[in-house]
Amino acid sequence: MRISELSERAGVSAASIKYYTRENLLPVGERTGYNQTEYGEGHLARLRLIRILIDAGGLSVAAAQRVLAAIDDDGLGLPSVFEAAQHAIPQRDAPASARARARIAEVVAQRGWMVHGDNPGIELAGGVLDAYSAIGRDDLATTLPRYAEAAEIVAAADLDALDASGSRAAMAETVVVGTVLGDSLLAGLRRIAQQHQTYQRYNAPRSEQS
Amino acid sequence: MRISELSERAGVSAASIKYYTRENLLPVGERTGYNQTEYGEGHLARLRLIRILIDAGGLSVAAAQRVLAAIDDDGLGLPSVFEAAQHAIPQRDAPASARARARIAEVVAQRGWMVHGDNPGIELAGGVLDAYSAIGRDDLATTLPRYAEAAEIVAAADLDALDASGSRAAMAETVVVGTVLGDSLLAGLRRIAQQHQTYQRYNAPRSEQS
Repeated sequence: MRISELSERAGVSAASIKYYTRENLLPVGERTGYNQTEYGEGHLARLRLIRILIDAGGLSVAAAQRVLAAIDDDGLGLPSVFEAAQHAIPQRDAPASARARARIAEVVAQRGWMVHGDNPGIELAGGVLDAYSAIGRDDLATTLPRYAEAAEIVAAADLDALDASGSRAAMAETVVVGTVLGDSLLAGLRRIAQQHQTYQRYNAPRSEQS
Repeated sequence: MRISELSERAGVSAASIKYYTRENLLPVGERTGYNQTEYGEGHLARLRLIRILIDAGGLSVAAAQRVLAAIDDDGLGLPSVFEAAQHAIPQRDAPASARARARIAEVVAQRGWMVHGDNPGIELAGGVLDAYSAIGRDDLATTLPRYAEAAEIVAAADLDALDASGSRAAMAETVVVGTVLGDSLLAGLRRIAQQHQTYQRYNAPRSEQS
């Protein structure tokens, strides 16, 4: 297809397509004549993936480029693809305190998890503990282990989805997409479950609920 | 304390403090003389809460103002405070498709959850399904129910933390803080659990892990 059709089907401007090609996010199309380039379904799929990384995941173009390179590198093991995806998602600015990191390490030990000390999740979860401490609330003792239990269920589902992906390329894409989108999926379902439980505990549901 | 001390302890500039006061996020201090205002510990705690809402939660000043008003309104039930907090967190631009909303409704029905049709979680989770569909991946059939199971565990922990908060004001603050910070806590723990499970399934942990 021509760039105009690719642009329309992907919902991405021709200028962006050219930019992604220059930045090595998207392979160049096939030159079929003077000032004419042909693109295939692979380009369309890749463009949609790029939009998910940038729009839904909030990745910079440079971060998206690194993640796509990890997907494309057949020699790279899946743990490394996971690592690339996890590190690419924007992190907090302030590092977590040593105290918060130690509390996360406790939870990790309780569940028997084996992880690297530089796992971005430690910074992320530790930063949340610091934010709670800043407002004088260190009352997560019973909450943390249950969040960890839920995280384990989700991670097992993530890894099962990975096993079911088939080819190495499909698995690598599943890792990246799942890392970027899974947090939002979980956040959405959490809001729904919260509402259900709030009604159950604090008042009867109103008639307009279904 | 004077505004300079409040500014230093909260890590918020004096200009921002004055701005938050003008925008009704922060109560005015007590006038103690010409061009002098005294602030108390309550102001400090409120300022730190404002920073969490804006920095960690990504809330606009207007959204933070609405959430704080919900906390301060003693006549407002906790389900309404939850609703205010959930609606204040920035949402996606594009609405979820009817098909995606129907799939979320199925999961909700499977778990026996009772929720409003305008729960922001439906849009959020539905949008994720749409993003998967856009890249030709509709393979969440086994993943979704397990994410929902995890969401229920987290929501139950959230509501238990609420029950343990004591006063109505403390409960309202717990709702808001938990809604804003809980997603990040869960996302962090998910990354850690993913790494553990990846190592378990795809290769033995390296020696530098602990």
